[in-house]
Amino acid sequence: MVLICKNKHFHEILTNFAGQKTVFMAQKPSIPKGTRDFGQEEMARRNYIFDTIRSVFLRFGYHEIETPAMENLSTLLGKYGDEGDKLLFRILNSGDAFAGVDFDRPLPPQVCEKGLRYDLTVPFARYVVQHQSEISFPFKRFQIQPVWRADRPQKGRYREFYQCDVDVIGSRSQVNELELVQMVDMVFSALGIRVGIKINNRKVLTGFAEIAGAPDKVVDITVAIDKLDKIGLEKVEEEMAAKEISAEGIAVIREILSLQGGFAEKMASMRSLFLGGSASGIVSETGLKGLDELDELFSLIEAGGVSQAVELDLSLARGLNYYTGAIFEVKALDFPIGSICGGGRYDNLTGIFGLPDMSGVGISFGADRIYDVLTGLDKFPPALGTTTRLLFAVMGSDELRYVLPLSAALRKEGVAVEVYPEACKLRKQFDYAARKGIPFISINGSEEIAAGTINLKNLESGTQIALKADSLEEILAFLK
Amino acid sequence: MVLICKNKHFHEILTNFAGQKTVFMAQKPSIPKGTRDFGQEEMARRNYIFDTIRSVFLRFGYHEIETPAMENLSTLLGKYGDEGDKLLFRILNSGDAFAGVDFDRPLPPQVCEKGLRYDLTVPFARYVVQHQSEISFPFKRFQIQPVWRADRPQKGRYREFYQCDVDVIGSRSQVNELELVQMVDMVFSALGIRVGIKINNRKVLTGFAEIAGAPDKVVDITVAIDKLDKIGLEKVEEEMAAKEISAEGIAVIREILSLQGGFAEKMASMRSLFLGGSASGIVSETGLKGLDELDELFSLIEAGGVSQAVELDLSLARGLNYYTGAIFEVKALDFPIGSICGGGRYDNLTGIFGLPDMSGVGISFGADRIYDVLTGLDKFPPALGTTTRLLFAVMGSDELRYVLPLSAALRKEGVAVEVYPEACKLRKQFDYAARKGIPFISINGSEEIAAGTINLKNLESGTQIALKADSLEEILAFLK
Repeated sequence: MVLICKNKHFHEILTNFAGQKTVFMAQKPSIPKGTRDFGQEEMARRNYIFDTIRSVFLRFGYHEIETPAMENLSTLLGKYGDEGDKLLFRILNSGDAFAGVDFDRPLPPQVCEKGLRYDLTVPFARYVVQHQSEISFPFKRFQIQPVWRADRPQKGRYREFYQCDVDVIGSRSQVNELELVQMVDMVFSALGIRVGIKINNRKVLTGFAEIAGAPDKVVDITVAIDKLDKIGLEKVEEEMAAKEISAEGIAVIREILSLQGGFAEKMASMRSLFLGGSASGIVSETGLKGLDELDELFSLIEAGGVSQAVELDLSLARGLNYYTGAIFEVKALDFPIGSICGGGRYDNLTGIFGLPDMSGVGISFGADRIYDVLTGLDKFPPALGTTTRLLFAVMGSDELRYVLPLSAALRKEGVAVEVYPEACKLRKQFDYAARKGIPFISINGSEEIAAGTINLKNLESGTQIALKADSLEEILAFLK
Repeated sequence: MVLICKNKHFHEILTNFAGQKTVFMAQKPSIPKGTRDFGQEEMARRNYIFDTIRSVFLRFGYHEIETPAMENLSTLLGKYGDEGDKLLFRILNSGDAFAGVDFDRPLPPQVCEKGLRYDLTVPFARYVVQHQSEISFPFKRFQIQPVWRADRPQKGRYREFYQCDVDVIGSRSQVNELELVQMVDMVFSALGIRVGIKINNRKVLTGFAEIAGAPDKVVDITVAIDKLDKIGLEKVEEEMAAKEISAEGIAVIREILSLQGGFAEKMASMRSLFLGGSASGIVSETGLKGLDELDELFSLIEAGGVSQAVELDLSLARGLNYYTGAIFEVKALDFPIGSICGGGRYDNLTGIFGLPDMSGVGISFGADRIYDVLTGLDKFPPALGTTTRLLFAVMGSDELRYVLPLSAALRKEGVAVEVYPEACKLRKQFDYAARKGIPFISINGSEEIAAGTINLKNLESGTQIALKADSLEEILAFLK
């Protein structure tokens, strides 16, 4: 069906365009703002990132799924707030979308039933609920797909970009958190990026609000604390005051954010604060539970082993009310670009689609930023985009036929080989090899045919050799 | 930005949903008709197909590109005929799409500027024209991405499906055709599918029309001939008569379609017909040119070597007016499903965007049909979806910590290992291993910890062994 349709339309393309050519001549083609074409080098680099991430996920027993680009708007609407609803790309109903619409009522809901995926989280929740009877829990999945947002495009912000999410749902054990940390460790070690993995716990943040005497202001306090790195302690305190946190409460928060020492010291100080030792004297059970979880997670990390830097960061909040346990954030240590990976535990993701009490934990890798870090640190493996090892230059019909069997034999051995398709000037064929970064060239004429030999030249070192055309192993060795 | 947005919206998800839970409880989530979720097994199988195809493309020096899902409607409209225009998914403009529209004029063009990619061909043409200054010609590219069509969904026809196109543009040499045939050969050999590769040439079809005395009816004759396999010679003749092909012309076509013999014989007979030997006595220069091209291509194929069956099929037309030279079609020999791959040479693909005279040739692999063939013939490698080799069952906190270092060490060696996250009943943990097809399980208690050993059990054979926990090589050997 696919192929047949394509052909039918190919035919129509030609028919339609024969008459319209001049119109199109004037029109320089372009793509929608905020979208990108990826050429061969970018694709090779992106595939390198995705393949590295994918291979690590698989090694921990996570499996890949894909969901459709289009979801029903009923699945998407209301899940990202009013602002998010406005950023959804809506798809006009097919057929006559405007037949029978009531022009006195808002039109978009009447003419659009579907929208483009806005993130991978809501489709994942929808997937788990829809397929719950087929799924074995704990369900460990990852998903690497584009998402679309009608944000105003700007540097580093696109309307189409890939997300790369890994989640496990249906288990409360912190072994899952450990595995996420181990995966982050293994991914960035494989990519050659030194990172710092920061960990906090949402229950500890709740504890802060409780001992500050403002248990209903967790979000305000969290949002303020989250800005500590950017705006400093003074401004954070101003912001909390503006949110009507009492001076006494602010003093408690200040006490917390000024805690010094290593992990054990900080944990001990926090525990005494949550036990009633703060200026307010309030006890926080939730805060203590959060400390227990952090203790358990750090003890698992120690037992499991992680090579990159992991640290407790009591100011890490990731500005959100959604997480219920561990919170993660990963930053590149040698390149200033903000967070390149982050996530946490949530307790009610699938509740939005009617499946309550499924606890899960997940992280998301920021592919575009990781790309920028690897570019900035010059850490992409060299010659990623150039796979072709050898170009057979071609000087005529006989010479062409002479190298065809060898090119086929080399490809069978897994070597990427090109045969220049035209018997044109050698200069042009050398240029082609140079532009594609092909390291070896083979030029053969009547003499080589008569002698049954193949000329091979290493374009980098200049080394040249003539080998018997049937000595496949020696040829392979030279091309190594 | 990605991560920050996500968090902001996560927060809103929770806030919005707390109050709406009951509404969503009632709503069983679903996906738009004609779209699909791909679970882990399907994904593993699809990735197997795409990875196989990709590795072959790369071995011939073709490189991957990607284009955005959304294109400007000015790029898409008019390229697929009136019927195709109707099948485009249009995207409502963001912001207030209906602000300032003139309700007396057609609305879709006023409220939609973008549409979803309908195939990979038009975006490829757009890409070549837009990036012509960066591209080295001959430009060899492949592209594996989904496309969207508002077709009526039915068995085997989807509204979102992957296309997998490989094309070279900017070279008229038939070495390119040879390479496509070699790639088809290598892909299907690697997948274990026996295929027949049929080849024809569009100029030969033009020659048919010329010697039938109906040079202006190439399309009618081509469309009729294309149905030969399905409706038989008699009906084909009726159809040609209905298109006002003369009785004499039909007699000439019958003469052609009845040609017997092998390649050389058929070619010789055709040549004499095109030289004026048919009932009409008309000479066709174009037809002769087409025979020369076929001669050259088959001679190259002989020199290059192809393991699967290749044959000349003078009735192969692929119902289209678009191709200008070679035409290809590939069918599975052991599974009845129609064409699984096809394509041909075109001389004016980029002319539609103002870059004339770029000759190219390409083929498209039908991923969904190849999937069905592999399923039908049971040719997918076994256990594609199961990567995890070993599950560590967990009986308690100490036992968990005992196996963490080994699980990390095994993963470093590339072995996919899972640690069951909860210390629950062993029955449940065995079930998990069985459902995920994990072949080895390791259960360790206080005795093993005391002895410093690791129990390993092959779940298929029942073989069990206890090895020193630090004897990584022996453990790896047992898991092989």
